[in-house]
Amino acid sequence: MNYFSSNFKLGILGGGQLGKMLLYETRKWDIYTKVLDNSEEAPCKISCDEFVLGSLLDFDTVYNFGSNVDVLTIEIENINVDALEKLEEEGVKVFPQPRALRIIQNKATQKLFYTDSDIPTSPFTRFVYTSEINDSINNGGLKLPFVWKCAQFGYDGQGVKVVRKSDDLNGLPNVECIAEEMINFKNELAVIVARSSAGEIKTYPVVEMEFHPEANQVEYVICPARIEDKIAQKAQKIALKVAQQINLVGLLAVELFQTQDDKILVNEVAPRPHNSGHYSIEASYTNQFEQHIRAILGLPLGNTKSKVAGIMVNLVGAEGHTGDVVYENMEAVLELEGVTPHIYGKKQTRPFRKMGHVTIVDKDMERARGVAQKVKETIKVISK
Amino acid sequence: MNYFSSNFKLGILGGGQLGKMLLYETRKWDIYTKVLDNSEEAPCKISCDEFVLGSLLDFDTVYNFGSNVDVLTIEIENINVDALEKLEEEGVKVFPQPRALRIIQNKATQKLFYTDSDIPTSPFTRFVYTSEINDSINNGGLKLPFVWKCAQFGYDGQGVKVVRKSDDLNGLPNVECIAEEMINFKNELAVIVARSSAGEIKTYPVVEMEFHPEANQVEYVICPARIEDKIAQKAQKIALKVAQQINLVGLLAVELFQTQDDKILVNEVAPRPHNSGHYSIEASYTNQFEQHIRAILGLPLGNTKSKVAGIMVNLVGAEGHTGDVVYENMEAVLELEGVTPHIYGKKQTRPFRKMGHVTIVDKDMERARGVAQKVKETIKVISK
Repeated sequence: MNYFSSNFKLGILGGGQLGKMLLYETRKWDIYTKVLDNSEEAPCKISCDEFVLGSLLDFDTVYNFGSNVDVLTIEIENINVDALEKLEEEGVKVFPQPRALRIIQNKATQKLFYTDSDIPTSPFTRFVYTSEINDSINNGGLKLPFVWKCAQFGYDGQGVKVVRKSDDLNGLPNVECIAEEMINFKNELAVIVARSSAGEIKTYPVVEMEFHPEANQVEYVICPARIEDKIAQKAQKIALKVAQQINLVGLLAVELFQTQDDKILVNEVAPRPHNSGHYSIEASYTNQFEQHIRAILGLPLGNTKSKVAGIMVNLVGAEGHTGDVVYENMEAVLELEGVTPHIYGKKQTRPFRKMGHVTIVDKDMERARGVAQKVKETIKVISK
Repeated sequence: MNYFSSNFKLGILGGGQLGKMLLYETRKWDIYTKVLDNSEEAPCKISCDEFVLGSLLDFDTVYNFGSNVDVLTIEIENINVDALEKLEEEGVKVFPQPRALRIIQNKATQKLFYTDSDIPTSPFTRFVYTSEINDSINNGGLKLPFVWKCAQFGYDGQGVKVVRKSDDLNGLPNVECIAEEMINFKNELAVIVARSSAGEIKTYPVVEMEFHPEANQVEYVICPARIEDKIAQKAQKIALKVAQQINLVGLLAVELFQTQDDKILVNEVAPRPHNSGHYSIEASYTNQFEQHIRAILGLPLGNTKSKVAGIMVNLVGAEGHTGDVVYENMEAVLELEGVTPHIYGKKQTRPFRKMGHVTIVDKDMERARGVAQKVKETIKVISK
């Protein structure tokens, strides 16, 4: 197959920042792209060859969109999978496969898949409705505290809640959900696995999420993770197993917990390029977006090793600011060595909205970590 | 000034591959762009915010295009400079400055500038018409062989010819031109200098052009050049001097000869991102395109050092092939370690047309050089 400057057409479902970064790679290789998103202001609108406005959850919209592309991929999981299945039956190559998406889209199904596949994960209970949870607490079947997660989709960041007492359940949507045992983890890690339609498989190095000591919020994604080699190897082995068992084509980002006694548990997965792999644009021989393209087109996978240490800082909207975005102190950040800001192109900021990220690279990890802290302390995403 | 996701507007004159790669950076920072090019199939057409079709050499077209942008830059030198001067007078920031473009656009003026500025360059004679050259040869004023270069523009690659005997002048256009002494150089080198509108100045490492031993054609651009440190320092010092003397804002690519007795002579310069800097996308902390944006916007300049060794191979159309392009053996090339192809997106190939390039990076230069050779031997740009 000839993909480069040819009639080949790649469809991408979703037009957000992940799609935008994917398009750097399709432009680099002159691969024709068609993007579906429900916003006229989608970051992908520029840089694709064709842009279609419409809902990713509507059967007809997704089906019609996908019916004239050669390969169809996603940059977000919340897609009408029925449409993808029909397209796949009709001969469109859909990667990740609808079958894998079904497992991942529903957190209860995902957890059951881990259990069935002998993949270590935190203990959990599935509930058809949130309202059933109180009974289970009262009869001693479920112990507090636990993490409540709605099974399907994310309800705009309201899909996860730590429940420490029964009252914390008040106000949660009454939907299919799971209650997960809280893991007192030593580290939160992630591994991106790439698997090509030709069956080739590779893992990226293990990355580490560093948390703010007080706020308990991820502050930095650090590659490579500052952990023992044997822990890193265990994490990569488990991530590989998940990707193999799920038989996925494309990228699988596997989020993991390293427990206090050095067990590795799978937290959750995403079947696409992932926030935890953004560092790869500047740090890796093959960045995750190019790797995704290689995987779904059946091209040879690229080198997943790093040229240099990489740290990623998310740029999220500051609290108390809603409106036209301003990136304050960008010049001061650009003065620091090895710093690359990425601005996603959303015109409006609001508290905690993901507006961009900054990558810091250096041959020396400690120096990179110092610069990352300065970046974090300096840049502010505010409104005019 | 707020450039990111704002109302700021950057105008780019020219929509070829250099502009296309520049747009990766404006997209990364969400800087609004407007591009002028005379081809509907310009590689820049996708990825800019506004595309205007028109001639870069027409006063009114360039003037009208530039009149509503905040900063105006170029990706090709052959521009109507009168229009740029008028725009500059009216308050548009034009970088590189029209004054510098006038010096560079005309090869005779450029050579006179070197002489006036005490910058080492090969001896030359200027002629108002090519037809005057024979007289000069006959009366002993000019010695054969020499390099004939037309002064203004390039006449589609016909702007340079080695003249070994008087007859070689037959068929050359009768235009303003120069006759340069042929330099029996040991190495052809290049240095990219970045100078910001705030006056900051930095040089990239010296790169080396490696020639095919028989065909006498540049095969590889190699960074860093495999030369002695003191030669590299001399080359950087001279390149810096050219940029300072010309007082340029933006990038200046300075092509140099290292003579058999280790003198450094300036060959010619280009006031923009340059083929000799393409390696920087994968190898440098700050690639030349991001650096160009930083320089013309007065942002702090980025680190010009390399993360790894980089080698660039141009992808040019194979002889005997004209028509719809096919990149033969791309899969075999993608199997090699550290290889990144760039496809410019020109749909039609013809012999020697620049269709793309491939970068090879590695921590080990010799290994990169080996892979580069395999790339060169494997990939073919042919027609269907």
